[in-house]
Amino acid sequence: MQSAKETYLEELFELLRIPSISALTENKSDVMEAADWVANYAGQLGFKTEMLYAEGTSEQDNHPVVYAERIDDHANPTVLIYGHYDVQPVDPIDQWKSDPFEPIVKGGNIYARGSTDDKGQMFTHLAALKHLSEEWGETWPLNVKLAIEGQEEMGGENIEALLSEMPDKFAADVAVVSDTGFIAEDKPTLEYGLKGIAYMQIDVRLADADMHSGLYGGGVMNPANALTQILAQLQDPTTGKVLIPGFYDDVVDIDDQERVNLAKIPFDKESFLAEAAGAYDTWSEEGYTTIEHTAARPTLDINGIWAGFQGEGAKTIIPADAHAKVSMRLVANQDPKKIGELFGDFVHSIAPEQVVVSTQFIHAGDGVLIDVNSEYMRKAQAALERTFGGEVIFSRSGGSIPVVAQIYKQLEMDVILMGYGLPDDGLHSPNEKMGLQQFYKGIDCNIEFYKSLITS
Amino acid sequence: MQSAKETYLEELFELLRIPSISALTENKSDVMEAADWVANYAGQLGFKTEMLYAEGTSEQDNHPVVYAERIDDHANPTVLIYGHYDVQPVDPIDQWKSDPFEPIVKGGNIYARGSTDDKGQMFTHLAALKHLSEEWGETWPLNVKLAIEGQEEMGGENIEALLSEMPDKFAADVAVVSDTGFIAEDKPTLEYGLKGIAYMQIDVRLADADMHSGLYGGGVMNPANALTQILAQLQDPTTGKVLIPGFYDDVVDIDDQERVNLAKIPFDKESFLAEAAGAYDTWSEEGYTTIEHTAARPTLDINGIWAGFQGEGAKTIIPADAHAKVSMRLVANQDPKKIGELFGDFVHSIAPEQVVVSTQFIHAGDGVLIDVNSEYMRKAQAALERTFGGEVIFSRSGGSIPVVAQIYKQLEMDVILMGYGLPDDGLHSPNEKMGLQQFYKGIDCNIEFYKSLITS
Repeated sequence: MQSAKETYLEELFELLRIPSISALTENKSDVMEAADWVANYAGQLGFKTEMLYAEGTSEQDNHPVVYAERIDDHANPTVLIYGHYDVQPVDPIDQWKSDPFEPIVKGGNIYARGSTDDKGQMFTHLAALKHLSEEWGETWPLNVKLAIEGQEEMGGENIEALLSEMPDKFAADVAVVSDTGFIAEDKPTLEYGLKGIAYMQIDVRLADADMHSGLYGGGVMNPANALTQILAQLQDPTTGKVLIPGFYDDVVDIDDQERVNLAKIPFDKESFLAEAAGAYDTWSEEGYTTIEHTAARPTLDINGIWAGFQGEGAKTIIPADAHAKVSMRLVANQDPKKIGELFGDFVHSIAPEQVVVSTQFIHAGDGVLIDVNSEYMRKAQAALERTFGGEVIFSRSGGSIPVVAQIYKQLEMDVILMGYGLPDDGLHSPNEKMGLQQFYKGIDCNIEFYKSLITS
Repeated sequence: MQSAKETYLEELFELLRIPSISALTENKSDVMEAADWVANYAGQLGFKTEMLYAEGTSEQDNHPVVYAERIDDHANPTVLIYGHYDVQPVDPIDQWKSDPFEPIVKGGNIYARGSTDDKGQMFTHLAALKHLSEEWGETWPLNVKLAIEGQEEMGGENIEALLSEMPDKFAADVAVVSDTGFIAEDKPTLEYGLKGIAYMQIDVRLADADMHSGLYGGGVMNPANALTQILAQLQDPTTGKVLIPGFYDDVVDIDDQERVNLAKIPFDKESFLAEAAGAYDTWSEEGYTTIEHTAARPTLDINGIWAGFQGEGAKTIIPADAHAKVSMRLVANQDPKKIGELFGDFVHSIAPEQVVVSTQFIHAGDGVLIDVNSEYMRKAQAALERTFGGEVIFSRSGGSIPVVAQIYKQLEMDVILMGYGLPDDGLHSPNEKMGLQQFYKGIDCNIEFYKSLITS
């Protein structure tokens, strides 16, 4: 099978070379090229493929969901595979050691934007199906549906609208998603909990243009000063508590049993910091461990802030306006829309009157907790153990995959989060990578899992 | 004289076309070109010119002071003219309605970066001297020294070092500077007070690269969150008081007499806001009027802030680092170096331990209060009244010209701040302009003033 794997790697490289950054309008045609690539690949495996756009949207204003199905016998079990072909932006580009869109293998890793999130992981499924198609021949014993979207990294709601519009199209016995990761290289992991998200923007406006800080300083409220005052009131930096009234009202707190389980996840501070891009120190909510806060307690982070002069030297201005992007990662039972409203209400209640403050809801996604005791979860556990060895860890993640919550809740099927990433993959960061063995064994594990689905 | 004035305008346009942005290394050769232009112009008027660099610096790491002198008879009075040929950066460039370095006259104004700050104002002196050279012929009855620098907009200390190194070279009976402005179009103004400045940068570092806010949110202290917490503690947004311990210790507060004088300066809130780039509202320190706070009380402003993702859409990262530029405008008796140290000490005392916080002193400048009752101030007042009409207003400004303090204090001469700018000139902003009549009458006023210096 070695030479087949090399082919799969070359095929993945083709996909990784396409700069399908969904958040940037200038990359629109690249995103479409990636969608076409996935559709063509599935088509060659005998899938019937479609580009789906949510009602009222079109190619002009949207990136399609590549939907593909191969149903050889309705009596057979059906699996739905979700993934995404879009990637994060690459800035700061000067921190990349190689071109983000020219994949290379170095030190046993595949380096490229999207290598692990999610092109590499998603493609382990396409490669597994290609392998099985040779074994299965003309008639497959498993029905397969693919829903590979192009808006995951921009918080687009195409897939969510489509799942609501045509639930029967996506109906299956079980869904599988590889967009998470192992908690350590030797610890295959099944995620059973994901956070929701409410992603907001605050805009503070003072004037039409920057002004001289000598002539107008002390005469107007500086919008950057005002913005930092607002942001500083969102969270207590000592306790880590979010200070937005009502924020914790619906939180399902971790219970003693879960606390014991989470404590089983190995935690080494030095390794954690090394994986966190060499972070200086840990910091967590009062009363919770690092794992508890990152995995199972809500968080609030400024994702970006900008105002005024950012260049070399000293420009003595009062900025015309100031902006921040703030996201809150939410746990089960927190409603992102309600949290967004609480956020907006609070920001407006503390906004100074001398500037114009507005908030935007950039996107929302539900959190989810999945049943860890289902038949499919055990099959996934077995496939992981057979392929990778070792005991499978059941874990919760601070990441958000809103569509997972929707598949679980609306389509009422188990979602198996069988991710092959590693903690130091640097997803969303410069020099993103995927372990080459994780990629190869991921293909094998998918093969095992699909085979297990056809034997009850 | 009309055709001579048109020639002066054309000559000014030549100078304005040179993009001499001193803060940007990429404009290094442009800055030198502007220096050469000034030196050549003075040379044609019979000045002996030199490019001066402070001890230990050279053309490689510095922009020169153009020093020029014409001393026809040591028994005659001597005037020192200070100005600067460098300009501010032009960003945000998309807000300019015309090319910042292609001057145009429109609606009675000269639009260009540097039109009023300070090329246009500085050039009124060169043009006045050109006019007088025709009247005076071979032997001038007034000795003139020029000190035109190229680091004013970057807080460089070349001129200050040179004034300390060779005070005799710059010695004169009186200095004149046109780098301020009228408080209104019909109110010629002599500034007698300027603020000092301490310009700082705060850098907060967490890690080597941005990281995923889902995986690491709640596990590390977000440096942007930390920075906003620090910045929010620098000033009380309600009272406007700076909260850095010791900040107000050396402030000479305005007394009742000065309060009465400042109240004579006309203030119309709507006009003030219109001039302040259409600002939404006024805001001032508790217990002080807008004019009192802007002119005579210290201020603190964030000039720029940046961290993480600033683009379109939603990038879910924790930034690797976060940065802010913060300047404090200081009043007489506040020592900028001491204030910078208090700032640094306070920032470090409130900095969270989970991130690495450092402060940089970008530049410092003394404030100054000049004697309003000198012979030279009365001569300047007379020249302004003869040229522009109306009563001359004596005013303090929130702007900072550190070299003025040094000339007044170290060289022990009166400094006449005879500025021709107008409140809506937009200096440091897009679409900077200078009134065409202010330019023409400024030349006339300088001629009157220089003539008055040779008659006692």
